[in-house]
Amino acid sequence: MSYQVAVLAGDGIGPEVMAQARRVLAAVETKFSIDIEYQEYDVGGIAIDNHGCPLPPETLAGCEKSDAILFGSVGGPKWEGLPPNDQPERGALLPLRGHFELFCNLRPATLHPGLEHLSPLRADISGRGFDVLVVRELTGGIYFGKPKGREGEGDQEFAYDTMRYSRFEIERIARNAFTAAKGRRGKVTSVDKANVLASSVLWREVVEEVAKDFPEVELEHIYIDNATMQLLKRPDDFDVMLCSNLFGDIISDECAMLTGSMGLLPSASTNASGFGLYEPAGGSAPDIAGMGIANPVAQILSASMMLRHSLNQAEAADCIDAAVSKALSNGYLTGELIGPNSDQQARNTAEMGDIIVQYI
Amino acid sequence: MSYQVAVLAGDGIGPEVMAQARRVLAAVETKFSIDIEYQEYDVGGIAIDNHGCPLPPETLAGCEKSDAILFGSVGGPKWEGLPPNDQPERGALLPLRGHFELFCNLRPATLHPGLEHLSPLRADISGRGFDVLVVRELTGGIYFGKPKGREGEGDQEFAYDTMRYSRFEIERIARNAFTAAKGRRGKVTSVDKANVLASSVLWREVVEEVAKDFPEVELEHIYIDNATMQLLKRPDDFDVMLCSNLFGDIISDECAMLTGSMGLLPSASTNASGFGLYEPAGGSAPDIAGMGIANPVAQILSASMMLRHSLNQAEAADCIDAAVSKALSNGYLTGELIGPNSDQQARNTAEMGDIIVQYI
Ligand SMILES: CC(C)[C@H](C(=O)O)[C@@H](O)C(=O)O
Ligand SMILES: CC(C)[C@H](C(=O)O)[C@@H](O)C(=O)O
Repeated sequence: MSYQVAVLAGDGIGPEVMAQARRVLAAVETKFSIDIEYQEYDVGGIAIDNHGCPLPPETLAGCEKSDAILFGSVGGPKWEGLPPNDQPERGALLPLRGHFELFCNLRPATLHPGLEHLSPLRADISGRGFDVLVVRELTGGIYFGKPKGREGEGDQEFAYDTMRYSRFEIERIARNAFTAAKGRRGKVTSVDKANVLASSVLWREVVEEVAKDFPEVELEHIYIDNATMQLLKRPDDFDVMLCSNLFGDIISDECAMLTGSMGLLPSASTNASGFGLYEPAGGSAPDIAGMGIANPVAQILSASMMLRHSLNQAEAADCIDAAVSKALSNGYLTGELIGPNSDQQARNTAEMGDIIVQYI
Repeated sequence: MSYQVAVLAGDGIGPEVMAQARRVLAAVETKFSIDIEYQEYDVGGIAIDNHGCPLPPETLAGCEKSDAILFGSVGGPKWEGLPPNDQPERGALLPLRGHFELFCNLRPATLHPGLEHLSPLRADISGRGFDVLVVRELTGGIYFGKPKGREGEGDQEFAYDTMRYSRFEIERIARNAFTAAKGRRGKVTSVDKANVLASSVLWREVVEEVAKDFPEVELEHIYIDNATMQLLKRPDDFDVMLCSNLFGDIISDECAMLTGSMGLLPSASTNASGFGLYEPAGGSAPDIAGMGIANPVAQILSASMMLRHSLNQAEAADCIDAAVSKALSNGYLTGELIGPNSDQQARNTAEMGDIIVQYI
C-alpha cells in the first residue's frame, strides 16, 4: 500500500517536533514496509506571511488529495493582533474541521506511569493514575451553529451564537464513543447540561438510544459543571468522556492539564471516510520555539494515531506507542517534565527523536 | 431599620443548616439591634409534594414582599424522575433568577488557611493558597436566550439554544466585577471564547470599555478552555473572574471543588435594586440529610452575604465572617473536612452553630 500525507508543520515548535515525527515515521515505514509520500504545505502564521491567509488554497488542495493531514501547531505573538477570523488557530483549524467534516475528535489524556508527580493533583489522587479518552464532537454545536452574529445599536446592541445539534450528528459521535469504550474499559460518560439546554436534552436522548446497541458498555450522564469537579477528585473513574464541541473543548483541556504533561498528548480528528487531521494537544509554544528543546512526543504519538486511524497500520502504530512508552519509562524526558530538584538529565528534541527511533 | 426576609429552606440538608443560620442571624440581630422579620416558604421538592410545583405562587409572592431570599438547597432522588422543567433545581432556581432579574451572581472560593490539605491540588500549589471571586452573569446568555427548542423529524430532528448577550447586560455585570476587584486585589480576569463565539467578541469589547472607568484595576482576558487549565496550575494568580452564565457555571464549580470544602462556600445573586437570593454553593446532599452532620457554614456565610449586599449591614456581616473564621481556625470542623487519619473531633451541625453563635 502507498499513502499520501499532507504535512502542515505550522508555527512555533511545529517544524521542530514535526522533524522528529518524520524520522520516527521513516523508521516504521522501513520496518513495516509502508510507503508514505509526504508533501509539505504552509499553514497558520507562516501561511499568512507567505500567502496572506492562514489556510491558502494550495494547502487545502494538497490536503484534499491526501489520505491524512499531519498537523504541527499554529499561532504566535506575531499574529495575535489580527481579527479573530484571520488568526492562525481559528482561520486554519476551524475551516479544516468544517471542510473535511472532521466530526470525531479523539483526545486521550493519560498519566504516564512514573510521571504522576507532574499532575497538579494531590499525590494520593494522581497516584491512582488515570487514562481518559475525550471523544469530542468537532463540526457541530455552538462552533458552527447558525445564526451567529451581531445586531442593534447602543445599549441594545447584541450578539448571538447558536448551539445546535441534530439527531444525526449526535448519533454518529456517540457511536464512535461507544466503539472506543468497547476497546477500553467499557464505560462512557456523556457530558451535557440537560438541566438547562434543549440541545443537551436531545443529546442525552440520542446517547441513550445508541447505548442500547452497546449492552456491554456502561453509560452515565454528567452535567458539565459537575464533570469539571469530579475530574479533580476522581479522574480514575472516567474512561471515555463523550462531549459536544464546546464542552469537549473545556473537558479535554482540563484532562490534558491534569496529566501535567501536555507535551505528551496527541489528538485525532477524523471524518466518516477515515480521513483525519492529527495534531499535538499543546500549542505552538512560541516561548521555546527554535531552541530545540520542545517535546516531540505529542507529535510522534499524533503520527501514530494517523497510522492507526487513517492509514490502517495498527501494527506500526503499536510499535511507535511502545517505543515512546519505553523511552519515557527509561527516563528519557525533555526539560519541562523534569522537576527543578531532580538530577535527571533533560533530553532535547532531537535526542528524544533519536531514542524513539532506536527503540523502533 | 426593619427588614423582611423570605426563608426558603428547601430539601435535603437545607432545613438543618438553615436552622443554624437563623440562630447566627438572631445573635447578630441582638448585637447590632437589627430587626429582621422572617417568613418561611416551601420551595423545590417539598413544594412539589405540598403544592404540586417547585416554585408555588405563594412562595413567589412572599419573596416579592421581602428584601431578600435566604435559600437553602433543593432537589433529591425523590424528584429526579420528573421532566427537567419540573425538577426542583431548574424549576425553582431558574424562574427565581429570571423573575427578580438576579443578574449578578457572586461565588467566592477561598482556601481557608489550615484547610489546604482538603484541596485536590498538589500540596505545593494549594500551599500557596487562593482566594477567587467568580462574578457570573446569571440572567442572560444561553440559559435564557431565545430561540430555544426542538424541530424536525427522524435523523433530521434537531434542537437548539441561543447564547445571546446585549451590550447592556455585559456592561452591568462587568461593572460589578470591576467594583468588586477594587475592594480586593485589583485584578479582573474575563473568561470568554472570543476565538469562536460572536457573543464573546462583544463581551470582550464591552469589558474593555468598562475597564477604562477602573484604571486602578488590571484586566486580562482568557479563553474558557485555558481558564479551566490555568486554575489547576496557578489558582493564586486569579482575583475576580468575570464570566458569562454558562462559563461561570463551569468555572465557579471548578473553583469550589479546588477548595475541597464546598460546605464552606456561600453565594449571592442580586439584582439592580439590591434585592438578592443567598444560597450555599453545595447541593441538598440527600445522602446525609436528617443526620445532623451537614456543615452549616456555607448557609451561615450566605446569611452574612445577605446582610452585606441586601440589608446594608456590613458590620453584622463582618462579625459573622470573623466568627466563622475563628471557629475554623480553632479547629471546629464538621466530619467531611477532617481526614480519615486525623485525631480531630468532628462537630455536628448544631455544635458548629453553637460555637459560631458563641463567637458573635
Ligand atoms: C483554537 C480553537 C478554535 C480550538 C477550539 O476551540 O476548538 C482549540 O482550543 C482546540 O481545542 O482545538
Ligand atoms: C441547577 C442548575 C440549573 C444551576 C445552574 O446551572 O445555574 C446550578 O448548576 C448552579 O450553578 O446554580
